[in-house]
Amino acid sequence: MKDAATLKKKLDRATLKAIKASAQAIYDKAGKKGNPEMKFPVRSLKNVKYSARTGYFEIGRQMKLRTLTVNTVKTFAQTLRMMSLSKELVETDDFATKRDAYYQSKNWGQAMFREQTESDAVMDDMEAHFSVEKISREQLRFIPDEHGGAVAGELTVLDPDLKTGRVEKIDCTRFGSGAYSIPSLVEHLSFETRAKFILCIETGGMFQRLQSHKFWETARCILVSMAGVPTRGTRRFVRRLSDQCDLPVYAFVDCDPYGISNIYRTLKVGSGNAAHVNQFYCVPRCSFLGVTPQDILDYKLPTHPLKDVDIKRAKDALKNDPFFQAHKPWARAIQQMLKMGVRAEQQALARWGLNYVLEEYLPAKLKNTKSFLP
Amino acid sequence: MKDAATLKKKLDRATLKAIKASAQAIYDKAGKKGNPEMKFPVRSLKNVKYSARTGYFEIGRQMKLRTLTVNTVKTFAQTLRMMSLSKELVETDDFATKRDAYYQSKNWGQAMFREQTESDAVMDDMEAHFSVEKISREQLRFIPDEHGGAVAGELTVLDPDLKTGRVEKIDCTRFGSGAYSIPSLVEHLSFETRAKFILCIETGGMFQRLQSHKFWETARCILVSMAGVPTRGTRRFVRRLSDQCDLPVYAFVDCDPYGISNIYRTLKVGSGNAAHVNQFYCVPRCSFLGVTPQDILDYKLPTHPLKDVDIKRAKDALKNDPFFQAHKPWARAIQQMLKMGVRAEQQALARWGLNYVLEEYLPAKLKNTKSFLP
Repeated sequence: MKDAATLKKKLDRATLKAIKASAQAIYDKAGKKGNPEMKFPVRSLKNVKYSARTGYFEIGRQMKLRTLTVNTVKTFAQTLRMMSLSKELVETDDFATKRDAYYQSKNWGQAMFREQTESDAVMDDMEAHFSVEKISREQLRFIPDEHGGAVAGELTVLDPDLKTGRVEKIDCTRFGSGAYSIPSLVEHLSFETRAKFILCIETGGMFQRLQSHKFWETARCILVSMAGVPTRGTRRFVRRLSDQCDLPVYAFVDCDPYGISNIYRTLKVGSGNAAHVNQFYCVPRCSFLGVTPQDILDYKLPTHPLKDVDIKRAKDALKNDPFFQAHKPWARAIQQMLKMGVRAEQQALARWGLNYVLEEYLPAKLKNTKSFLP
Repeated sequence: MKDAATLKKKLDRATLKAIKASAQAIYDKAGKKGNPEMKFPVRSLKNVKYSARTGYFEIGRQMKLRTLTVNTVKTFAQTLRMMSLSKELVETDDFATKRDAYYQSKNWGQAMFREQTESDAVMDDMEAHFSVEKISREQLRFIPDEHGGAVAGELTVLDPDLKTGRVEKIDCTRFGSGAYSIPSLVEHLSFETRAKFILCIETGGMFQRLQSHKFWETARCILVSMAGVPTRGTRRFVRRLSDQCDLPVYAFVDCDPYGISNIYRTLKVGSGNAAHVNQFYCVPRCSFLGVTPQDILDYKLPTHPLKDVDIKRAKDALKNDPFFQAHKPWARAIQQMLKMGVRAEQQALARWGLNYVLEEYLPAKLKNTKSFLP
């Protein structure tokens, strides 16, 4: 494993180089009395492709061009200001949320944003612009404002201090009934682990059960609480951990179209409308432990009828989602769920006893990881 | 400070005693061919009172009586089953979420719940019933399914293992850019700290800034990220920490009716519709650091106009909320905000530089804690 501080410096240099190159190109063009322009990939579902080989929703080749004209002058200036802010953040080893960036603009004179939606759009454009050069928003030092996921188990996180560079070693087996809360920015982290896999869990309640009973000890694993659709910080954390430590990732979510399509699919291949950044967030090595529609039958789980929104979501997935279309076992599983007309929560396993999930269900499942849905 | 394990055993004994006493009373009445009955405090805003002396929304004296009749037999049986589940959880040192309890009922034969709303209502009743004897839902071993808040700073959490009793010492200065994630159940925790106060922060982004720059080191404090309205686990954690270590609590939230009325007021005195449990969750020692309406003027903060829902919420607070009615400075502050017609986010301080908040704003505020709103 590479030294975290060295890796970080290398990334920072690449980021600064890319920002400078973009700015220089605009400056040069302007110097020659030309019309400066910037290119951005088109961010829409129509400009997305999926192949099981790359393992995530990739952005297509459609680009939009923003040329400096009377009409675009303000947005153009704002984009450059935003790039300059990013450069400053990398140089001072700091970071900003979307809101921070919006409020910073209040000092930009004429280039001030009036609404946060404006600054968010410029930030998304900039993120898309640099994603072409494999530079993520996090490398640009823009962080999400969301609460991160929680982690417990066989993992030590190495976290170098912003200022001193002193590395903090965080042992995730030592949190009692509590857990490690993932920071917004995870690019500077590195990992040490003897775990065999990462288990990503939908609900806080299930995570708390597995954590309090130290399931990670018997199963030699790392537990991650996603609390619904995982935040970007959580997805990036799991991705980097999986990559660096060569660990498979198993998802344990509710058996309903939301758990399968929104949570699992987003974790594994990314989302359609943020396709320009999926390369950084997707977790291609993820597979689906459960709860599967077949589990409902095998474990005689209590169910709820599918709601209209569930049925719509499931049919949409079959008809329009390139991921489910590419994987026949998934198409069959979703059809089975639609036919049964029911859904089941992961906590439904409590029917057989509160700790049945950790004493019976998970161990049985983990004996046969090859049968997991792709 | 009392030994955590001893304290926990004492609480567990009290809980078991109360459950047995309630059950015994019903059994005795039935044995004498009487009609068994159970008493529950009425849970509604109309049965709530506030005094600055007790420091929280207290439930009133109105009670409802549930007598065993042909019509109530099922609910009555379910309540007893739920009490029995709670007893089992205390005895086996385990816990259950609302959902777990619902699914457990699938083995209760005729007493099975058909919908989770039914089991939630029975659990709320039971919680209210035992709250009269100062026993919290957490002591009954029912835990929320929510994600806990994050903590960083000058604090060591002592957490005894469920099974072995071995105490884990969690040093919250050692999480790097990450944080300690509060567990769902905090009754068994105890604390060691040299901090001077607890700072509760509304947004994840602001928490991340203060944490990454180790504000807790210079200010000698404990940082808590609430991520909006704090969960019960977070509120109970702050309350116990404040009580045990005799620490004042300062809230740092957006200057809008949501931050003031929903987040701050709930943290300090509890909520109206869960008044029967506020005694466990309220943090009476909390005061309001900012952002205040006066701060908007003093710090020339960028603002947004108040939305209709903001105006409605502010007027409601002035007219109907016993807390704001009891504290004149609050009534004046809310009137000032209404008059100005604007709100400001805590991140608006970024206007003066990203780290202005930790280098200027917070230190200036903390020099004069007596001026904080009550």
